[in-house]
Amino acid sequence: MAETGDSGDSGSSVRVAVIGGGAGGMSAASRVKALKPEWDVSVFEATNFVSHAPCGIPYVVEELTDTSKLMYYPPSVFIEKRGIDLHMNTKVTKLEKGRLRYIENGNEREMEWDYLLIASGASPRVPPIDGIELKGVYTVDLPPDAEMIHKAAKGVEEVVIIGAGYIGVEMAEAFAATGKKVTLIGKYDYPLPRFDREIGEVIKSEVEKRVSYRGGELAQAFEGKDRVERVITDKNEYKADLVIVATGVKPNVELAEELGVKLGKTGAIETDSRMRTNVENVFAAGDCAECRHMLTGENVWIPLAPGANKMGYVAGINIAGGDIEFPGVLGTQITKFFELEIAGTGLNEKQAREAGFEPKSTFIKAKTKVHYYPGGKEIMIKVVADSKTKRVLGAQIVGYDAVLARVNTMAAAIQAGFTTKDLFFADLAYAPPFAPTWEPLIVAARILKF
Amino acid sequence: MAETGDSGDSGSSVRVAVIGGGAGGMSAASRVKALKPEWDVSVFEATNFVSHAPCGIPYVVEELTDTSKLMYYPPSVFIEKRGIDLHMNTKVTKLEKGRLRYIENGNEREMEWDYLLIASGASPRVPPIDGIELKGVYTVDLPPDAEMIHKAAKGVEEVVIIGAGYIGVEMAEAFAATGKKVTLIGKYDYPLPRFDREIGEVIKSEVEKRVSYRGGELAQAFEGKDRVERVITDKNEYKADLVIVATGVKPNVELAEELGVKLGKTGAIETDSRMRTNVENVFAAGDCAECRHMLTGENVWIPLAPGANKMGYVAGINIAGGDIEFPGVLGTQITKFFELEIAGTGLNEKQAREAGFEPKSTFIKAKTKVHYYPGGKEIMIKVVADSKTKRVLGAQIVGYDAVLARVNTMAAAIQAGFTTKDLFFADLAYAPPFAPTWEPLIVAARILKF
Repeated sequence: MAETGDSGDSGSSVRVAVIGGGAGGMSAASRVKALKPEWDVSVFEATNFVSHAPCGIPYVVEELTDTSKLMYYPPSVFIEKRGIDLHMNTKVTKLEKGRLRYIENGNEREMEWDYLLIASGASPRVPPIDGIELKGVYTVDLPPDAEMIHKAAKGVEEVVIIGAGYIGVEMAEAFAATGKKVTLIGKYDYPLPRFDREIGEVIKSEVEKRVSYRGGELAQAFEGKDRVERVITDKNEYKADLVIVATGVKPNVELAEELGVKLGKTGAIETDSRMRTNVENVFAAGDCAECRHMLTGENVWIPLAPGANKMGYVAGINIAGGDIEFPGVLGTQITKFFELEIAGTGLNEKQAREAGFEPKSTFIKAKTKVHYYPGGKEIMIKVVADSKTKRVLGAQIVGYDAVLARVNTMAAAIQAGFTTKDLFFADLAYAPPFAPTWEPLIVAARILKF
Repeated sequence: MAETGDSGDSGSSVRVAVIGGGAGGMSAASRVKALKPEWDVSVFEATNFVSHAPCGIPYVVEELTDTSKLMYYPPSVFIEKRGIDLHMNTKVTKLEKGRLRYIENGNEREMEWDYLLIASGASPRVPPIDGIELKGVYTVDLPPDAEMIHKAAKGVEEVVIIGAGYIGVEMAEAFAATGKKVTLIGKYDYPLPRFDREIGEVIKSEVEKRVSYRGGELAQAFEGKDRVERVITDKNEYKADLVIVATGVKPNVELAEELGVKLGKTGAIETDSRMRTNVENVFAAGDCAECRHMLTGENVWIPLAPGANKMGYVAGINIAGGDIEFPGVLGTQITKFFELEIAGTGLNEKQAREAGFEPKSTFIKAKTKVHYYPGGKEIMIKVVADSKTKRVLGAQIVGYDAVLARVNTMAAAIQAGFTTKDLFFADLAYAPPFAPTWEPLIVAARILKF
């Protein structure tokens, strides 16, 4: 053990400290131990969860699972099988070059490190709304929130959700599925504003089948006596027994800043392709860190689990003396609202223009099976390409089946630098129960021309 | 019109003849007319179906659709909308340089052509089994067969299927789903022998839940008085009220050979990347033609609809004076047997070795959703890569959901020349209802190392 105070045999071993036991932190810690079993790897996690999945919180509220299952692996796997020195419920309070301080079981301790990985995650961005401190107002962050919100929802009739991004929409499903009257308040015309309008309108009309969507409204106050009773916006007033504030997240960078770690223009920790920060032997991974965008080459901040896992994997290898670069992300995402599957990868039209491309796009409707095979569902696909180079830049897909197939195919195609011609000639699978003879992605490529 | 005998205004226009109105022929004809509306394009189709889908035949037998729906587009679309001179129920009887003869409504006629596309398709390979001419013995070829087999199956109890390739397995599902007792006789240990053993064993155990699979047996005779009553193999004897012979297909190349068109070593028409044959102004496309394999660069014969469509598209553009190359196929395929989805793309281990690679593979089992989300199904994936270059060569996937997502992603990845490292870093979608945090394809890449 490399901790000062409780161990005397630290001299010979390399000491790695990891702040944060989420996807990025645990991936990195596991990788270092796999490559350097003799090194000391300590992970400091503020909650009683490791390798946790905040993305599972809506499904606890929807009563599809329970909080205890949100850990991908239990702590014992990391401690016993992988030999990681795991400190749960432990808060790192101070970060300096070569050492850090933490509080565990009420005691402040210190550890010296040779390598540091900052994987401190992200937290809800809490807007300065009057009454935000009222009982009955929740954010969606860590697994314990799942239990808290689930309990609070018992007996509740009307739920107001502020923010119509992924978390807001998923929470809207969760509450609507369990019989609540849900009002979803979004800043924009349609929910999930990262999608272009054609797709956004489909999402909106699906959302409106189940919940009241109030687009273009801004929450201004939460009111109530002992607990929240009303939400006041710039246009309306809504009765609310429970409020979810899901207006985005921000990277947890306070400790990193203490150490002199440079932040990027997104506000998250700037990293190079090896997940190194500007401070020697200090790496960053996961939701607190930037990484490269595969298409633009620019650093972006897209806090999602698959990227976090891979950033941690890359950081772990490089910490352990290996040399591997992270090619970056495309921001591939998928979610659903009841039956509607919703996914995107790469750049939307606005992002494409901002990145200096000349976007050209097509929006098509198709069926998921051959016309004569029963059970075909509707699927709508928007593909964005660059007019000049014909390179495929992005895809947005909504539909009632097999959206995953299209978004992942497009993620691979975009990573590969496919032009519309390459996409047209992709040898994608066909059989009557699975796809039309002309796969919709290929039809989109044909319409975009090459 | 460019036909001699019924038109006098042929002198000025370019005349294109297309033999075969299936996927390849109709794609080509449509493309030529789109690019050169003033040209005369005549298609000769032996049946009363165009742009037909033999792949739909099992689903007619399964009573999921009816024969009339097996046309992708009705003839009127081609004739009226696209201006194609379409000859249905018309057999081309003789092919010479610059002219062909055909029989339509009992009359023999002649047409002169400037460009010819041979898209004559493939036909069942009928093995020389004693009694193959008996009533009640069928092959699966053209849409009219669907109706015939469907009618013949009424009141039938026991069906024996000879051949356990795609058609055999799909027909086995069709008969089992409609309450018949099915015996499926295959040459090899397990059905669909193009798959490697790990995958084949999964397929076999699924098939055996519904039908009797007799592997490693060879049909030697069909016996019966007025109609088939028994199938005799080298090992057993089976009662049979109806027999399906599905022992593969062969390219229809007789007319092509008459013209001096060169066949490739597969026995199908040899083509270059522009779908040209060795004879000037003669092109070939679809199930009668070879094309390039994207991975090996060798000509292969893989008669499947998506490739046929694209070969026709390429041939059409080149006939019309454009210049486009067909990058080829990967042999991507998908089918299902009841709930089990079965797909593959690229090379299996044996094919990889034969192509000069040093294959290395992994076989993994995973779930289609995060462990805590209800409804996750089992999926099994084999990925083959080259040990030396780490290039991904093939994937075989079986499972109870979302197999299309994996096979199409791999088809794009293989087309792009992905290494295992590229695959590991693919930014594939994650959300609890859709995939585990570590997408199985990425896990496979990690296990294969990079």
